[in-house]
Amino acid sequence: MSEVQRLLRPDLRGRTAYGAPQLDVPVCLNTNESSYPVPEVVIRAVLDALEADLSSLNRYPDREFTDLRKALTAYVERQAGVAVTPEQVWAGNGSNEVLSHIVQAFGGPGRIALGFTPSYSMHPIIAETLGTTWVDGLREAETFDLTVAAAADQARAHDPSIVFLCSPNNPTGTALPFDVIGAVLEAAPNAVVVVDEAYAEFARPGTPSALSLLADHERLVVTRTMSKAFAFAGGRLGYLVASEELVDALRLVRLPYHLSTPTQTIARVALEHAELMLSTVEAIKAERDRIVRELASLGATPVESDANFVLFGGLPDEKATWQALLDRGILVRDVGIRHHLRVTAGTPAETTRFLEAMTELAPTHVGPVTTPSTVDHPDFETAEDDA
Amino acid sequence: MSEVQRLLRPDLRGRTAYGAPQLDVPVCLNTNESSYPVPEVVIRAVLDALEADLSSLNRYPDREFTDLRKALTAYVERQAGVAVTPEQVWAGNGSNEVLSHIVQAFGGPGRIALGFTPSYSMHPIIAETLGTTWVDGLREAETFDLTVAAAADQARAHDPSIVFLCSPNNPTGTALPFDVIGAVLEAAPNAVVVVDEAYAEFARPGTPSALSLLADHERLVVTRTMSKAFAFAGGRLGYLVASEELVDALRLVRLPYHLSTPTQTIARVALEHAELMLSTVEAIKAERDRIVRELASLGATPVESDANFVLFGGLPDEKATWQALLDRGILVRDVGIRHHLRVTAGTPAETTRFLEAMTELAPTHVGPVTTPSTVDHPDFETAEDDA
Repeated sequence: MSEVQRLLRPDLRGRTAYGAPQLDVPVCLNTNESSYPVPEVVIRAVLDALEADLSSLNRYPDREFTDLRKALTAYVERQAGVAVTPEQVWAGNGSNEVLSHIVQAFGGPGRIALGFTPSYSMHPIIAETLGTTWVDGLREAETFDLTVAAAADQARAHDPSIVFLCSPNNPTGTALPFDVIGAVLEAAPNAVVVVDEAYAEFARPGTPSALSLLADHERLVVTRTMSKAFAFAGGRLGYLVASEELVDALRLVRLPYHLSTPTQTIARVALEHAELMLSTVEAIKAERDRIVRELASLGATPVESDANFVLFGGLPDEKATWQALLDRGILVRDVGIRHHLRVTAGTPAETTRFLEAMTELAPTHVGPVTTPSTVDHPDFETAEDDA
Repeated sequence: MSEVQRLLRPDLRGRTAYGAPQLDVPVCLNTNESSYPVPEVVIRAVLDALEADLSSLNRYPDREFTDLRKALTAYVERQAGVAVTPEQVWAGNGSNEVLSHIVQAFGGPGRIALGFTPSYSMHPIIAETLGTTWVDGLREAETFDLTVAAAADQARAHDPSIVFLCSPNNPTGTALPFDVIGAVLEAAPNAVVVVDEAYAEFARPGTPSALSLLADHERLVVTRTMSKAFAFAGGRLGYLVASEELVDALRLVRLPYHLSTPTQTIARVALEHAELMLSTVEAIKAERDRIVRELASLGATPVESDANFVLFGGLPDEKATWQALLDRGILVRDVGIRHHLRVTAGTPAETTRFLEAMTELAPTHVGPVTTPSTVDHPDFETAEDDA
């Protein structure tokens, strides 16, 4: 054992650092980014705002990111139609950071975090890295549905301190049955219940947001991100909405000045152009629905999606299909579910490239599967790309 | 007990969220920022570089911050005259974040972190927030010196997993006797030894850097920041240098994509203008030495400083002096040491304002003290401003 391995926290020893190669391929449909660049008018507005900021970078940022919180508050109210206060809003360098604040404040050694696999693979990594015991809750076999009864029973059985729900769920893509949230809150009376709505803006019409439940539930947290529909993954801005007292408690665990002055300014200006930043959402949803339609016509089994990606089964050897797509310059995601892959809805041209490749591959790569679609525990290699 | 308090991690219950008011006063000499704005030529270069980046903010950042690491490597080599590789360099959103990566990887429940109080007050907060037991090591009474024997004895007695040293030490300002580092490495064979050199660029000529010891010590970590001499507190960029294997292990605990694309670009461009960014360091050191000289002539007991601040004693009632200075529009820092305050060396005009106020206050505020200069445990209210 090397000197560094000897000194490492015992439960981290022997783990491989997460860091899959960042492949340079023509069509990247693996990380659920937006394929659309930031509009020129937003770039100009950001540069103008930054010019005023940069000379004062010798000073620490606003520790309470006051203006950014106001901008997030206004955006949430407009997007979800739910009234919130700036004191209910919290932000970090990506939603992973706000999730880690929740785990630090409400988890810890001897406490349990429960999630329902397959789901966002950073949930268990964040919990375990911060010393919280992770319990892999189960979904229905093959469909990966989470029923009210199954969620409540498992929450009751484990008495968790944190429950992670995800709606729309990643990697399956479908919104959570809304009643699950209330049932889990009731079945886990000692838990902070996190509903991860990273992909909420892509949901099909009529899909309710957990934000509408906040007024009645002091233990409920809704996390969101600017990385997906907002086309802002490189700006690293995730946020959450919860009760004012819960948000205030996160200040006990955050590192002071965690959001830089430029991060606050750039995100604020982007939010002021929300309509423009979100103008490609309908086009992305159209490509998503086209992927579902056309993959079904090829004999695959795509899952209905409320997100900007599609999980599809019916692949006897998903690793061979992943490689065959990569050989054609198309990178999709092996999310650790047998017989399945996940593809991001890109531009119409990218989607066409993917569907043409799948059409070419279908005769040999799509067909009946005879073994179950088991879920491998998400590993460090595949977990990293949806922050 | 409120619902949120009931759910909170037990050891956080009842704590006050750190968040002292950000006071708006004419002369801010409390957080060891640089008083000098970022030069216009750097602002132009940053804006030019960002313009090219902003359109691709829909994509995730370079997870390995390759170009920034190269720029930090070149800077470290030039500033300290020590050859390092980019694989030995690691960065985060402020040095607090790289410190928290060290604690997450090498600390944890059942493990001990040892520091020597008074020192940087975020060290115990980061350790405890991440579930690592903090041991307050002792310095000499009144002088706050740390001798080789005292450091080694305490390291041996506690068998820590992490030891925090700080050179120049904050809040006392003096560089660590260099032999302490080797003695602690030997006395604590199971520890990662962190030398926090946040203020290294201000050290008096001939002060060696712990960077020169890295080649021989795989368990040694040197942390630095762009917040102080680099005049870049608002950009939030802290970094560390260690062995390649130790740095690689930090990838097990970092959140993927923790550094945004703009953060990487802005810091990289600033580093490319290092000479210009550091051009005020000599002026700041001159003000620092002037503060030491003039406070001594007023009968106070300033500590010799290798940093951009001065700790001074000889105040029978330091809280009254702090308030009297604030009444005159000057904000300094009560660091929790009886009979002492800490003041940042600002511009010549700011320093003059401070010294004039002290001259006016000296007859009633400076004088012999009859009780010991005890160190209060640093609290959340005063810890936050030196990230």
